[in-house]
Amino acid sequence: MVGGVIVTNAGGARAVKYGVMRNFVRGMEVVLPDGEVMEIGGKLVKDCAGYSLLNLFIGSEGTLGIVTKGILKLMAPPPSSLMLIVPYNSLHDAIKSVPAILKTGVLPISLEFIEDDVIGPTEELTKKKWPVMRAKAYLMIIVDSTSEEEVMNIGMKLTEVCIENGAIDAFVIDTKSKQEELLEFRGIFYEALKENMAEILDISVPPSKIAEYVEGTKKLSEKYGMSLPTYGHAGDGNVHTHIMKDEGWEEKYEALRKEIHELGVSLGGTITGEHGVGLTKKGYLKEFEPKKVELMRSIKRAIDPDNIMNPGKIVDI
Amino acid sequence: MVGGVIVTNAGGARAVKYGVMRNFVRGMEVVLPDGEVMEIGGKLVKDCAGYSLLNLFIGSEGTLGIVTKGILKLMAPPPSSLMLIVPYNSLHDAIKSVPAILKTGVLPISLEFIEDDVIGPTEELTKKKWPVMRAKAYLMIIVDSTSEEEVMNIGMKLTEVCIENGAIDAFVIDTKSKQEELLEFRGIFYEALKENMAEILDISVPPSKIAEYVEGTKKLSEKYGMSLPTYGHAGDGNVHTHIMKDEGWEEKYEALRKEIHELGVSLGGTITGEHGVGLTKKGYLKEFEPKKVELMRSIKRAIDPDNIMNPGKIVDI
Repeated sequence: MVGGVIVTNAGGARAVKYGVMRNFVRGMEVVLPDGEVMEIGGKLVKDCAGYSLLNLFIGSEGTLGIVTKGILKLMAPPPSSLMLIVPYNSLHDAIKSVPAILKTGVLPISLEFIEDDVIGPTEELTKKKWPVMRAKAYLMIIVDSTSEEEVMNIGMKLTEVCIENGAIDAFVIDTKSKQEELLEFRGIFYEALKENMAEILDISVPPSKIAEYVEGTKKLSEKYGMSLPTYGHAGDGNVHTHIMKDEGWEEKYEALRKEIHELGVSLGGTITGEHGVGLTKKGYLKEFEPKKVELMRSIKRAIDPDNIMNPGKIVDI
Repeated sequence: MVGGVIVTNAGGARAVKYGVMRNFVRGMEVVLPDGEVMEIGGKLVKDCAGYSLLNLFIGSEGTLGIVTKGILKLMAPPPSSLMLIVPYNSLHDAIKSVPAILKTGVLPISLEFIEDDVIGPTEELTKKKWPVMRAKAYLMIIVDSTSEEEVMNIGMKLTEVCIENGAIDAFVIDTKSKQEELLEFRGIFYEALKENMAEILDISVPPSKIAEYVEGTKKLSEKYGMSLPTYGHAGDGNVHTHIMKDEGWEEKYEALRKEIHELGVSLGGTITGEHGVGLTKKGYLKEFEPKKVELMRSIKRAIDPDNIMNPGKIVDI
């Protein structure tokens, strides 16, 4: 439901260029805990009338009221887009290209890194082959622009930058059907891992810390003897580390999970970049951000004094 | 100060494409009313960890805490940009072009309308001539893109769209020095009007309602016998109506001001698109948005129970 997408502040692979739901919500209708129905915002681009209640309700996970309507900004689809798959000898090299890409002034729609360990299980599940050469790691880049010619120019420019930064090669995926095939393949990673997965994390770190974060998780993987396949939104630092159900995982899970989150926070990251707090991250939020939880509790009590809106989520009151 | 730019959620002419301060603040350090110093956010692109305290403090006008540091998103400057000045026989025609422009898929950096009445006083003050033909109204459009060639293509496309929608002509301002001269001229409008001005309003309406809003102010101008020169951000609906100190303005000011705000609100607008509430719009906020003021007061009380942070601004507690 649109209300759910708003109150979870949903975001995905294209957030690099276009942002998350927060950037698209212009207005909403919300049912408040006292039963009153309130309109916030509207078909407005700019609004400076006091505290941003709009932004308070976006991402509030239903704990302050129920969003029953949304006014969303829409955009005309980009006339042309192009995908690049860029293989690297290591994840480190792939991630190191990212700042160089962003410095060209081109903001890709989507800029993801993929470790080769997720390719095998996905090929098995889909019975399809990864359509370019295999390597240790890949960047999957999608760019858009106002003309066919211009996306080709941009594609050439980014290819150069990637090669200069250690890429083995760069494959231009320019037909719509090939692009869709690859996006579908990318969409299956999660499905392919799911069966043997305990949890998908969504720690978000500063983009400049992605390499350090991923290397840290590799060390934890060794320390615990647990595999932690990773792919993520390299452009925005939202990294999906998967805790797998390897042998004996039940005993290691809690401690490993905590160490991964501590690692993310120590690098200036947040415990959740897109999935939200809910019940499962409430403990971490309280532990890592006690002052913020104090403020959030006071806001929750101010707006929902009887604690009737999705009680127990985000913070206890 | 950066803190001031953040807590006022400042925004200007380029908000059409790039947004206001809210879209650029990634983190901050804030001194809370209890003296504690809190870090919010960071060098992060995505964050879903509970209520967005970041967005609560952005635009809070110093009433919840003092922002002492900001972490801001920066962007590489666009490689190429181009300005178009498009004259029309009426403001109505000019504003009617705007949806057609936005439908091309091109998002200009800046898309402003200018009524001819502001040109004269500006020429007088600057001793410079408006560099293109005079007409009743103008659109001033700035576009940017990844190459010189591409901005020329976009310029041609928008020129066509404007001509199809009633423009008399379209002037491409492609040299940097000419562009700067025009921006300077544009920057003087306010200065040129200021001496005889009682107030510059910043009502923001849905972009589709701009024509209706401006026509409404023309009627009020006649009704009160007061001139209300107007220019504004056509791309985002943030219209600057100027209440001038015409003869006898002191007696008419309050009633006229209120009617203009009522007009804006009746069209789905907000009383302030960029200037904020402060003291001067507190009364309107309470009158037009009583429920929101109730929520804002409860938030203010929750975070600043002793009312020591910029007391009396936005809401009374």
